[in-house]
Amino acid sequence: MTSPTATLLLSCPDRRGLVAEIANFIYSHGGNIVHADHHTDFTRKIFLTRLEWQLEGFDLSREEIAPACEQLAGSLQANWQLHFSDTVRRLSIWVSRQDHCLLDLLWRQKAKEFTAEIPLIISNHEDLKEIALQFGADFHYLPITPDNKAEQEEKQLQLLRDYQIDIVVLAKYMQILRHNFITRFPNIINIHHSFLPAFVGAKPYHQAYKRGVKIIGATAHYVTDELDAGPIIEQDVVRVSHRDEIADLIRKGKDLERIVLARAVRSHLQNRVLVYGDRTVVFG
Amino acid sequence: MTSPTATLLLSCPDRRGLVAEIANFIYSHGGNIVHADHHTDFTRKIFLTRLEWQLEGFDLSREEIAPACEQLAGSLQANWQLHFSDTVRRLSIWVSRQDHCLLDLLWRQKAKEFTAEIPLIISNHEDLKEIALQFGADFHYLPITPDNKAEQEEKQLQLLRDYQIDIVVLAKYMQILRHNFITRFPNIINIHHSFLPAFVGAKPYHQAYKRGVKIIGATAHYVTDELDAGPIIEQDVVRVSHRDEIADLIRKGKDLERIVLARAVRSHLQNRVLVYGDRTVVFG
Amino acid sequence: MTSPTATLLLSCPDRRGLVAEIANFIYSHGGNIVHADHHTDFTRKIFLTRLEWQLEGFDLSREEIAPACEQLAGSLQANWQLHFSDTVRRLSIWVSRQDHCLLDLLWRQKAKEFTAEIPLIISNHEDLKEIALQFGADFHYLPITPDNKAEQEEKQLQLLRDYQIDIVVLAKYMQILRHNFITRFPNIINIHHSFLPAFVGAKPYHQAYKRGVKIIGATAHYVTDELDAGPIIEQDVVRVSHRDEIADLIRKGKDLERIVLARAVRSHLQNRVLVYGDRTVVFG
Amino acid sequence: MTSPTATLLLSCPDRRGLVAEIANFIYSHGGNIVHADHHTDFTRKIFLTRLEWQLEGFDLSREEIAPACEQLAGSLQANWQLHFSDTVRRLSIWVSRQDHCLLDLLWRQKAKEFTAEIPLIISNHEDLKEIALQFGADFHYLPITPDNKAEQEEKQLQLLRDYQIDIVVLAKYMQILRHNFITRFPNIINIHHSFLPAFVGAKPYHQAYKRGVKIIGATAHYVTDELDAGPIIEQDVVRVSHRDEIADLIRKGKDLERIVLARAVRSHLQNRVLVYGDRTVVFG
Repeated sequence: MTSPTATLLLSCPDRRGLVAEIANFIYSHGGNIVHADHHTDFTRKIFLTRLEWQLEGFDLSREEIAPACEQLAGSLQANWQLHFSDTVRRLSIWVSRQDHCLLDLLWRQKAKEFTAEIPLIISNHEDLKEIALQFGADFHYLPITPDNKAEQEEKQLQLLRDYQIDIVVLAKYMQILRHNFITRFPNIINIHHSFLPAFVGAKPYHQAYKRGVKIIGATAHYVTDELDAGPIIEQDVVRVSHRDEIADLIRKGKDLERIVLARAVRSHLQNRVLVYGDRTVVFG
Repeated sequence: MTSPTATLLLSCPDRRGLVAEIANFIYSHGGNIVHADHHTDFTRKIFLTRLEWQLEGFDLSREEIAPACEQLAGSLQANWQLHFSDTVRRLSIWVSRQDHCLLDLLWRQKAKEFTAEIPLIISNHEDLKEIALQFGADFHYLPITPDNKAEQEEKQLQLLRDYQIDIVVLAKYMQILRHNFITRFPNIINIHHSFLPAFVGAKPYHQAYKRGVKIIGATAHYVTDELDAGPIIEQDVVRVSHRDEIADLIRKGKDLERIVLARAVRSHLQNRVLVYGDRTVVFG
Repeated sequence: MTSPTATLLLSCPDRRGLVAEIANFIYSHGGNIVHADHHTDFTRKIFLTRLEWQLEGFDLSREEIAPACEQLAGSLQANWQLHFSDTVRRLSIWVSRQDHCLLDLLWRQKAKEFTAEIPLIISNHEDLKEIALQFGADFHYLPITPDNKAEQEEKQLQLLRDYQIDIVVLAKYMQILRHNFITRFPNIINIHHSFLPAFVGAKPYHQAYKRGVKIIGATAHYVTDELDAGPIIEQDVVRVSHRDEIADLIRKGKDLERIVLARAVRSHLQNRVLVYGDRTVVFG
Repeated sequence: MTSPTATLLLSCPDRRGLVAEIANFIYSHGGNIVHADHHTDFTRKIFLTRLEWQLEGFDLSREEIAPACEQLAGSLQANWQLHFSDTVRRLSIWVSRQDHCLLDLLWRQKAKEFTAEIPLIISNHEDLKEIALQFGADFHYLPITPDNKAEQEEKQLQLLRDYQIDIVVLAKYMQILRHNFITRFPNIINIHHSFLPAFVGAKPYHQAYKRGVKIIGATAHYVTDELDAGPIIEQDVVRVSHRDEIADLIRKGKDLERIVLARAVRSHLQNRVLVYGDRTVVFG
């Protein structure tokens, strides 16, 4: 499967014949489907699909595919995205002081678990500069105070433009983004250190310890205006006991955080995640 | 989704256009697909699919669908099965002395987690007769000795015919079926009390205890001639520690066994399991 | 280990020499310790211990042990409980309409997973009467309305006294107990169908579905005045996906509920749970 | 708990009074126990314990403690080890070409999850030299062929002596150590990329793929002469499906391997692991 593929993610109102219609669109142009997954949300009457096909033998050029999808989608009243497997996405990782998620993502990218470039690290602290540089990423230090947040976000947006960033990953970036920022750059994945919606807000491990839970979790989600309420991409948990102090919860949580975040980023980069309303479909 | 559906399970050599061709078959007859899942095993170059569509509005009668599928499958060199959602399968549970899996399956059937009838319980012991009767199933006691096994299997086969049984579930039936039986009634699900292929054969919990493992498991699989080597449908595990004696492993294992077996039976009854070679696809 | 044992659960302010002092207390009377587990909560500076020793060879009679513990505890400013392994606790299960937890607990008791008697089932519906009777338990139907709740709770308390009940298990009893009841009978375990503190209150599976979580859970806890906020005994989770409708969450949740509740009841009956403040130690 | 502690790990034939006797030994010298955990293996009639106490206030000097333990152990026919929490163990990591476990262990050491020094990396390949140097460890390249293995093992043993190594961690070192080596340096932890005892030997992920399992695992164990049969310290698993190719199993397995190995190394360094016979107790 090393030949390049196109992936169409599409959601539309459910009706008869959608699978056939979309598969025919690919087939009529000579496309060989390598992955097809469909889901119907019967509660909301929405059809969602992911189709991936080989470009080799497809009789539309790359430039012609998007307009053809547009036409198809129009007749279906569909939302859609088109991706080519050899288009390398550009990712920016934002961090504060903790290094575990950053190091993990950089290692996975180097180990080719992700098809992505990571040219830009942004932080409100200087601690992790060295790791960024070791992995060949530029590091921009933009300290945040209540007073300069708006101003710094302008600089951040400019950096995202300069580096042609497709997706921002908040890898333990301990700052809340303003509405204005999210509106202008909505493609953001965050890792939250709890099993959302349990323990929203600050210091979830302290909350979990206080509550005496027997399991802790981590949640990767898209960032929306409402804090910790964005569509969930991935979650996982680990068992804890009365023997675990807060420091142990934090340590165990770190392992969760990096794995949950990595899975979410990987699913996103493989175009397996479809957001609709406040939820996601993650195609297997 | 209460209107009846047809489900086609199909596997064939992979080639271009299969998704479209099969979806068109449904659509051209006016079928509304409610579930479509495909998988391509690129190693073995096999395409596998599960399509479920509403019979309402479909322009083929039930009697016409199978011949039409036969024709489609012929052109694809495909293996296929066709199921109607309102055909209630008839299940026979075979047990020895342990009741946990039997009780669990009977309860789930009563709770409508399964769409199936369970008219026949067979056992080589008399212990569980009362449970069978409570749930309205007939109970046949067929003790097994090395000398009478062949003879008893003839009686068992006759019972399966008499009760028009579609599927046998070995719910802790501690006897090995002979080649001759399996050939004549191949539709058998077994629960093995280990994480296969670890601890094949007898007394897996004793083996696990001796080996000092930190996790134990259970495996539901189709029965084949080779002991404990049939295609795996479902597995799950639970953590154990040095504090767990063999009795604890057995107790924890029971919870695993009944859940793993129930999941496998449910997937089978929902026509989600496709066997190819010595492995399965379990559609989500 | 079939000879009877005594178990001392004790918590007190932490200080030097506690392990030695308490072990000496047992040993000086000729006791053979079969299980000893200690925990120090360094945040709260509390020492908690569970000691189990054989009564055979112990030079205090059963009647003398409690006063001796009282004396020991006094010098340590300790809270303590004493249990004998051959004292069979009497358990009352309260249900509404769902049978899965009730059936599961009754089966486990019959299978000797619990050392307990279950003489009394109480319900605000009549649906589960037959199951109770099948397992030899009395069934009392006490329908609840906003108007008669106080009155019915008096009857419930009287039943608990009449049947000499030690512990009440709310096995999907969909009613909130009043402060007055909990004060007078504080020994109550509840199963909540979510991963607390996520989704407190009503209809947690509907909440979970709406939120689009990727994992659901269940929580067994002691009942306190504050709804869903009592000390947690056990939790567990299961993975779900976009394919799971609310009915699937409920079905998967049932398997969790019965296992989590059973583990909690078992830990309680084995005197492994020590409550301190709003949390528990569950000794392994 | 920042003041230094001593930890005694001890196993001996079970008999009456052991907990009291050992706790008294600590207490009689003024020791404040901060962690005490005991286990009795009733099958083998062996008592195992871990006691950790503060050195502050203890009336024996460090030099006097070992002889006192020796005396205590003599009377109990016990095996024992004594560790001081501020003695930093020296660890050597051995690798071949895969970097994930190495990087993970080095990161955890730097993040202070381990109290250990890692001065020496040994490999039969040169690929991971740079990572070793980045984290300040010496890197020794010792290529292995069937002909030079005995000779290279002599050099390896000399390096272990030169660097005063306490424990060797085989972090995906794809070579089998000879009997002669293990006898002379028995303190070795290995990570095996399967849920042992399933898939012993080479290429476990290929074996798992072929068998069609639904769950894969990883196992950390002490190395003994019998390949993949040493005492298990830690195991964990992850779910896979028919969609996972061998490359996916390997990728998912890597996450397991590094977490399972890290947990095992951490438990070992915290002196929580007691080997007896061919199994372990891992104190919580």
